Amino acid sequence: MSVNEVLLCYSKMIEQRLDEILQSNSDAPEVLNNAMRYSLLAGGKRLRPAIMLEFYKVLGGDPEDILNFACAVEMIHTYSLIHDDLPCMDDDDMRRGKPSCHIAFGEDIALLAGDSLLTLAFETASDVSDSIDPKNALKAINLLGKAAGMCKMAGGQVLDLQSEGKDISLDEINKIHDGKTVAMIKINAQIACVLFGADKVTYDAACDFCESIGLAFQIRDDILDVIGDEKTLGKPIGSDDSNEKNTYVSLLGLDKSVKIVNDLTNKAISNLDVFENSENLRELAQMLAGRNI
Amino acid sequence: MSVNEVLLCYSKMIEQRLDEILQSNSDAPEVLNNAMRYSLLAGGKRLRPAIMLEFYKVLGGDPEDILNFACAVEMIHTYSLIHDDLPCMDDDDMRRGKPSCHIAFGEDIALLAGDSLLTLAFETASDVSDSIDPKNALKAINLLGKAAGMCKMAGGQVLDLQSEGKDISLDEINKIHDGKTVAMIKINAQIACVLFGADKVTYDAACDFCESIGLAFQIRDDILDVIGDEKTLGKPIGSDDSNEKNTYVSLLGLDKSVKIVNDLTNKAISNLDVFENSENLRELAQMLAGRNI
Repeated sequence: MSVNEVLLCYSKMIEQRLDEILQSNSDAPEVLNNAMRYSLLAGGKRLRPAIMLEFYKVLGGDPEDILNFACAVEMIHTYSLIHDDLPCMDDDDMRRGKPSCHIAFGEDIALLAGDSLLTLAFETASDVSDSIDPKNALKAINLLGKAAGMCKMAGGQVLDLQSEGKDISLDEINKIHDGKTVAMIKINAQIACVLFGADKVTYDAACDFCESIGLAFQIRDDILDVIGDEKTLGKPIGSDDSNEKNTYVSLLGLDKSVKIVNDLTNKAISNLDVFENSENLRELAQMLAGRNI
Repeated sequence: MSVNEVLLCYSKMIEQRLDEILQSNSDAPEVLNNAMRYSLLAGGKRLRPAIMLEFYKVLGGDPEDILNFACAVEMIHTYSLIHDDLPCMDDDDMRRGKPSCHIAFGEDIALLAGDSLLTLAFETASDVSDSIDPKNALKAINLLGKAAGMCKMAGGQVLDLQSEGKDISLDEINKIHDGKTVAMIKINAQIACVLFGADKVTYDAACDFCESIGLAFQIRDDILDVIGDEKTLGKPIGSDDSNEKNTYVSLLGLDKSVKIVNDLTNKAISNLDVFENSENLRELAQMLAGRNI
């Protein structure tokens, strides 16, 4: 299978479980369930949870056993997009080629759909397969909270808001990216390793891989905001420029940024030496470096 | 000790731990930490977590062992207040006698402070004392997610939004109260019993007690919105009336509502027979029925 076929396979597993979970919550107000479904099943790449499932497989586990954790990460990613799009935040009307959640359902329902997805993420993660050591599951939930929380993802969003219209340094940009983007990519390696009970060398290598592809992913995002195709991306380009955001591209230029993405990708791949059968992860890193969507 | 002294004692334990947790997250952007602290340590009654700690004590456990779960419930309660106060929701400028979080810190920071508190709640709950069976901890986290989620607290908020300005029945009011208020009171009995490993009879009695005092608590809230003192309450009264909200008071009148609160309180107390040393819980139920704040 090509890495795209592997991703599609994981994507199907994840979407089927996400669909089941929403269906099993049919007691909730219909409009809330619909708003959550609208954003959660809007055709994302499922990149984050796919990384978790692939790492677990590479370690020797059955991805099915940790599918709920993979769904939890996707729920948290989706909640963050819904809240980021709200008028009091980035005020974005379009997401993945469709009206944002608050345009489709109103601000109040979008707010609560985000809150409910965040809550459902932890509910889902705590519903653990019998094959997982409960102590490891608690540790994984703890790491998931840290990655999504005040010191990482939510904190990164605050730093990002505070930086708009200001000149900030590359160090400050890295801090924002580390919180907003890298943490929720790295968490997939962390969860896979913790749930499998991997040793420290393995855990560190998996984390380092994700840190490098996570930063590369974000810089590629900034590059696509300049050279991307709006139709392919499903959102307007040039928003960083009009929001006066400092990015790798605005500070270092396009060519240098492309080079950094490639360097980070190579660095990421060098961490895969400790794993057998890590071909898919290598191809994934390369694909992400050159993606147009 | 009187029940008020017991509550004060729990309140101190909880606030000390909440303070420690926020301090240990000093890596987060300062404004975010400040906004979370502003709302979390704004002098709430800590009623919900106190119920959890007291039930755990009545069962024979050491409240200290489940303090993180108690803090998690308080964090979720606080996040729900911050988000409920936002302009796209109830648009309330005052809370507990102070400007609401979004008035003090802006809508964007208030939104993220709420998100971060909800996330921190699950991070905190998953950091479990060694004396607790990890399987029970996972079950408790799962129940916490359900209580705060789309079918209960967040869902109840949606039903409440949808009902404004409409004539709704007592059944529909009960459904809103069950989600918005009762679920996050009942969860304290559920968590205490699950973490202790209590049997089904005990679990059911504790839940029934909380369901009755939870509904009584909400009806007392509606009563205070008519007869309460703004200064004591720390918020304006008459908001249900001006928002055209149907309540027990608007549908059944003040006298009938007071009687229902008393009946529910007696019903709650009748569930305490299965517990030894449940004097504090009995007094708590009685105090809540007549509270002015």
